[in-house]
Amino acid sequence: MKIGVFDSGFGGLTVLRALLPLLPGAEFLYLGDTARLPYGSKSRSTIVRYALSSTRFLLDQGAEFLVIACNTASALALKEIRASTQVPVLGVIETGADEAAASSKTREILVIGTDATIASHAYAGACRERGLRALEKACPLLVPLVEEGWVDHPVTAEVIRIYLTELLQQAQEAELDPDTLVLGCTHYPLLRPMMEAAVAPAIRVIDSAQATATQAARMLGGHPALSRKPDRPSRCRFFATDSVTKFGRLGARFLGSAIHEVELVDLGG
Amino acid sequence: MKIGVFDSGFGGLTVLRALLPLLPGAEFLYLGDTARLPYGSKSRSTIVRYALSSTRFLLDQGAEFLVIACNTASALALKEIRASTQVPVLGVIETGADEAAASSKTREILVIGTDATIASHAYAGACRERGLRALEKACPLLVPLVEEGWVDHPVTAEVIRIYLTELLQQAQEAELDPDTLVLGCTHYPLLRPMMEAAVAPAIRVIDSAQATATQAARMLGGHPALSRKPDRPSRCRFFATDSVTKFGRLGARFLGSAIHEVELVDLGG
Repeated sequence: MKIGVFDSGFGGLTVLRALLPLLPGAEFLYLGDTARLPYGSKSRSTIVRYALSSTRFLLDQGAEFLVIACNTASALALKEIRASTQVPVLGVIETGADEAAASSKTREILVIGTDATIASHAYAGACRERGLRALEKACPLLVPLVEEGWVDHPVTAEVIRIYLTELLQQAQEAELDPDTLVLGCTHYPLLRPMMEAAVAPAIRVIDSAQATATQAARMLGGHPALSRKPDRPSRCRFFATDSVTKFGRLGARFLGSAIHEVELVDLGG
Repeated sequence: MKIGVFDSGFGGLTVLRALLPLLPGAEFLYLGDTARLPYGSKSRSTIVRYALSSTRFLLDQGAEFLVIACNTASALALKEIRASTQVPVLGVIETGADEAAASSKTREILVIGTDATIASHAYAGACRERGLRALEKACPLLVPLVEEGWVDHPVTAEVIRIYLTELLQQAQEAELDPDTLVLGCTHYPLLRPMMEAAVAPAIRVIDSAQATATQAARMLGGHPALSRKPDRPSRCRFFATDSVTKFGRLGARFLGSAIHEVELVDLGG
């Protein structure tokens, strides 16, 4: 069973990290479109074009299930990706909204993410379908802070404090009573302890990477190709469109373990 | 006289801003390759490919002089761009190093820029050719902070303080006595007051955007096509490979005046 996992860069490795223990025996194909990252600051048509060529590559490699481990691509290109293939496609937005719906008692939640994810209002739409009201906020500095390695740094804590204070103030002005904060970007799980410190105990933090892995495992858990070899470890192949050295070095931080081999892919552009 | 100005995004508009008053009567063609930005975190071969297709577009539009207003492209692709055309090509690295050489008394200087510019050691090489010793440091958070609009924000002041303290400590450990700091990224002119506050009065700040404009004006100042119409205002056409709305909105911050019309260009990718 080959599972394709796609992100614009490294963040999706937090989804892969959550998938690995849940789907033993699977073969994961991870593609980071690092030559064209970040998607988060680009327009819809550009993101759709990049996402389609990236997922096409994973399908050509034999992927039988696709995880769009990129909030921006899930927000802006999921429909187009689904239309381009017969294999099941799971995006991080729907799964994050599902978990928020299961968790929230007040039915009012907060969502943070990149510029493009937030501007798309994809979370607000997915939440509305589930009977939740969502207040969204773009936090464009958080990805660069994670990529600088400042995941446990006072500057990052201060930036998080500034963003969340603004968001909570907006919630108050809108007379909302949020009890859940969705981390709508696959980089943010690395900042989870800081996020929890900033909003606890009134607000529960939900991580769309973990939510997506849980849902994928639920969908595939009974798959015969997997259940036949539950004691076999998962295998991973890593592909990147830019420097494989940098992918291995930075990626290990997101995956939480060493990445030994990365294959370079040219998707044009 | 058509002058092509190229950057991966908006930062090069600080170079255009410095050029405008120096070259009245010129027609500027500015291309921001915003669909593929930022170049600063990508590999050399990817940057060369992007820079060549971008400058080819400006040449096809009739540019008779090219300003590579992007430190990353100047560091990694200048040779390839020069080999691809007969028109004169000016990059920001050489001009920044020229001005540092004219300014420094101790012959020891500091340079800050993006990851890719610094990893290329292009400034160190250009400085060495001019009899200067350069200590370089990548400051990857500064571009996102400028793009967030936090150009006069305490968090940005703190990030600058952290980066420059580390750099000055490295200088001390290497027994250097630097008297000049080169801002090796076209986003950094917007942070110049904060940079000066952090290192003054011992260290003079040089801005490669201003240095490039001055050198271009020196090279073209006597050009007959320009000197014939010194009282005619300069004209600008703006091209972007991603959202023209975003280019107009963000770009105005870098240009220091409104951008009314932006043309969308598809360079593939």
